[in-house]
Amino acid sequence: MRAFAPKNPDFVARVRDGFAHQKALALVGAELVRIEPGVVDIEVPFRPDLAQQHGYFHGGIVGMLADCAAGCAAFSLIPADSTVLSVEYKINFIAPAEGERLIARGRVLKPGRTLYICQVDVAVVREGRETPCAVMLQTAMALAGRSDGPRVAPVTTAS
Amino acid sequence: MRAFAPKNPDFVARVRDGFAHQKALALVGAELVRIEPGVVDIEVPFRPDLAQQHGYFHGGIVGMLADCAAGCAAFSLIPADSTVLSVEYKINFIAPAEGERLIARGRVLKPGRTLYICQVDVAVVREGRETPCAVMLQTAMALAGRSDGPRVAPVTTAS
Amino acid sequence: MRAFAPKNPDFVARVRDGFAHQKALALVGAELVRIEPGVVDIEVPFRPDLAQQHGYFHGGIVGMLADCAAGCAAFSLIPADSTVLSVEYKINFIAPAEGERLIARGRVLKPGRTLYICQVDVAVVREGRETPCAVMLQTAMALAGRSDGPRVAPVTTAS
Amino acid sequence: MRAFAPKNPDFVARVRDGFAHQKALALVGAELVRIEPGVVDIEVPFRPDLAQQHGYFHGGIVGMLADCAAGCAAFSLIPADSTVLSVEYKINFIAPAEGERLIARGRVLKPGRTLYICQVDVAVVREGRETPCAVMLQTAMALAGRSDGPRVAPVTTAS
Repeated sequence: MRAFAPKNPDFVARVRDGFAHQKALALVGAELVRIEPGVVDIEVPFRPDLAQQHGYFHGGIVGMLADCAAGCAAFSLIPADSTVLSVEYKINFIAPAEGERLIARGRVLKPGRTLYICQVDVAVVREGRETPCAVMLQTAMALAGRSDGPRVAPVTTAS
Repeated sequence: MRAFAPKNPDFVARVRDGFAHQKALALVGAELVRIEPGVVDIEVPFRPDLAQQHGYFHGGIVGMLADCAAGCAAFSLIPADSTVLSVEYKINFIAPAEGERLIARGRVLKPGRTLYICQVDVAVVREGRETPCAVMLQTAMALAGRSDGPRVAPVTTAS
Repeated sequence: MRAFAPKNPDFVARVRDGFAHQKALALVGAELVRIEPGVVDIEVPFRPDLAQQHGYFHGGIVGMLADCAAGCAAFSLIPADSTVLSVEYKINFIAPAEGERLIARGRVLKPGRTLYICQVDVAVVREGRETPCAVMLQTAMALAGRSDGPRVAPVTTAS
Repeated sequence: MRAFAPKNPDFVARVRDGFAHQKALALVGAELVRIEPGVVDIEVPFRPDLAQQHGYFHGGIVGMLADCAAGCAAFSLIPADSTVLSVEYKINFIAPAEGERLIARGRVLKPGRTLYICQVDVAVVREGRETPCAVMLQTAMALAGRSDGPRVAPVTTAS
């Protein structure tokens, strides 16, 4: 895996700040556990209200966490005056997400001028043993001159 | 759009029951609003704790809702003694999900013996006007002889 | 389905020209059969050398045709001085592509400033009866100031 | 990367045979260059009739090659009396496929009872230097009791 040079020296604070502004991540209890240039890991401890019918992590939580890890990985590489949108992603579920902790490891495969192609490996930890449970390919888009804080001016479209 | 014949005459009750067992759906306030053979619509009213940084619905909520609408659409067509797993999906975000209500309309494109290919159109409603905000293709898998209620016996893998 | 306004009045000639420069499309015998703003249909008549092991159209031909229909649909909407790249796509195969003719119908779901989100329905025609055989979601990207004719200057990356 | 145990001791011959029955692969000049349990690499040398408008490998060739590498990787792990279908895939193009040789490296991430989740990394070789140009996630399905040779009895659907 290649290492990438961040364009913003304060990328760690910026990723933390962008993460903190997303209330849906607080709702599910997501935590940033690693921030490096082009690499971000996010975890969610299990809670019964995050479950599907068998008591595992719900697929919606898996998808949300993975998309977020990919977006944050892209976010760590953009200039200070840009922001990032998730354009699209595809996820394959490869095992039930049964365990006490879910971890999504996002990394940028290819940083472009506008688009960032990211991959995420999601694992679930059960009694200390980690099992891969999903894999994602995601496309993020950098938008110049956009704030990622609370919106004050209209933003038009996702693309 | 073709109409499909449900294999379980009690499919409406079954979909409601399957939905009710997924606690993560209650966490985000998801509601079943339409259940027909191969067609399920799910809504989420806006709440600030479902938002991303600009105060729109978070992409993770959009993805969760859409995957669930697809899974439920497949679930409406399976035999009474089977259950359904989400194998994979791909979502494109096409506009910001800014509004007071999110609605995911899932439908089965192709019911197979084992796999169900589904499409979901997601729209956001703002001041009564609906705007498409995402589109999903999803693959669900029917598993014979599996309960979708609380797990009592081990289930091995997603595939 | 919304109708879109083309930014280039000569979009029909432009799409024909862009199509004609792709030699791989000639190799498989692809033909443009419909060009409207945001809507392009492409066909391939069956030949034994396009087959997979059962004598149906090979999935690779299905994917190529669908990606091309999506890209051409986006291409029909861009300004005269831009070109289009395929960023990514996802395809679900829903039935064997057994027949004498394959037809991919691409349409733009959402034209953005930079990205075009497209959908393609692929059908196979057998003894005059059409059967859906695949569905695709594709993301195309418009690049300003790029020629789509034979390359004379280096182009750096897909993103 | 985990090593997988093949269920068919003759998997190498089986993969070669399955590959040889796909005439579309011969049309584009595809060659099997590596066959191990759950791992298959396929190459295509450049020819002008495989090109897009700038003289690079056409995206349709990249997609076909990658889907085939994934399918063959799954095929290497199935029992002798089964065959494999491509259910769906998603591909991201990450750089122009400019070079004299294209190589798709497919591997099974997760072999299930029915479904095989595969990843493919595609690279292009130019003047001896390899550049990643695409990445794919693919889902393949094993079908018991199906021949992969020329079809003698009707096969119903892809799913």
